[in-house]
Amino acid sequence: MEQEYASTLLENTVTQLSRLPGIGRKTALRLALHILRQDENMGVDLGQSIINLRKGIRYCESCHNISETDICPICSNPNRDTSVVCVVESVKDVMSFENTGQFSGVYHVLGGVISPMDGIGPDSIEIQSLVDRVKRGGVEEVILALSATMEGETTNFYIYRQLGGLDVKITQLARGVSVGNEIEYTDEITLGRSLLNRTLFSESFNR
Amino acid sequence: MEQEYASTLLENTVTQLSRLPGIGRKTALRLALHILRQDENMGVDLGQSIINLRKGIRYCESCHNISETDICPICSNPNRDTSVVCVVESVKDVMSFENTGQFSGVYHVLGGVISPMDGIGPDSIEIQSLVDRVKRGGVEEVILALSATMEGETTNFYIYRQLGGLDVKITQLARGVSVGNEIEYTDEITLGRSLLNRTLFSESFNR
Repeated sequence: MEQEYASTLLENTVTQLSRLPGIGRKTALRLALHILRQDENMGVDLGQSIINLRKGIRYCESCHNISETDICPICSNPNRDTSVVCVVESVKDVMSFENTGQFSGVYHVLGGVISPMDGIGPDSIEIQSLVDRVKRGGVEEVILALSATMEGETTNFYIYRQLGGLDVKITQLARGVSVGNEIEYTDEITLGRSLLNRTLFSESFNR
Repeated sequence: MEQEYASTLLENTVTQLSRLPGIGRKTALRLALHILRQDENMGVDLGQSIINLRKGIRYCESCHNISETDICPICSNPNRDTSVVCVVESVKDVMSFENTGQFSGVYHVLGGVISPMDGIGPDSIEIQSLVDRVKRGGVEEVILALSATMEGETTNFYIYRQLGGLDVKITQLARGVSVGNEIEYTDEITLGRSLLNRTLFSESFNR
């Protein structure tokens, strides 16, 4: 049913907010009315921050991560090892790996995984730029860090083949039982992989 | 855990978005990254619409509904019957009643209901302005259209007492079985009220 809005300003905001994922017109209306109940500053700051974000963010020319400069802070950091490139699906995954504090290499953000069902082929994502990057030299290891899903595995395999003739080590994330998970609820494929790739118990002390 | 954001612009937007109700930092990040993936126009329009909303909206001096002018379009509409005032809790409720297409009177938006648990007393909401409005004359009927909750009933009763000595008819919404509901799942109090206030079956033909 078409809602009767008291104001075109309100209707416009509701329309804009409801374009966001997971936000329907009812939620958008609730958010807009919330903004109206707050200090004027809150609404203005929110609106301005979104404009600044959209206008100020570009993509790193090297790794395709979001950045405010041509080359992102990770790629331009002299303390990062540019010979190790971690291939991830999205900007969010870069944040996840950065939060582990375990990685001192650099990234390559694909911007998606191959998914024919969604019309995403190899050319829709940043695979060619990865190949070019490796061909330019200086990369010793490519870590495939995509999701352990059908699409992720397909993309892993496609990249593996594209990099086939080049002198680079290609690794992937370990598959195994997630920390905190019970064996009872872990699927058989994961259990099988975790058995095959078992590690020395004594090595876990040093981590 | 503190997230490492790739950019202060992104972090700022996430912080602002996560001030909205029902949106945590994870959802805010998802929304911000979505905005980045869209056309630049989409983000800029969204931001600008929120700023315009917050700067352009004020409250109607007569009914306290949101408005872009001193007096809202409903109050200034010559076809509306200003002698019938429907008292509602919120701006959203005005929209709900407008959507029924059944009401040609005007509104009075309280901006809440009396709720001592939440620190909302009679002076926190627009009750005195309602009393003043009735005292100025011209109002023949006040329809109490608040929620059928403890707080709503309390507020109804408080308003009823405040308007006690004035020459005005005070009515409230009918209580009864909701349209589409089954008797089996309707509570006893509602069933009791619906029996007491039963209406002529023949009257339902004309609605």
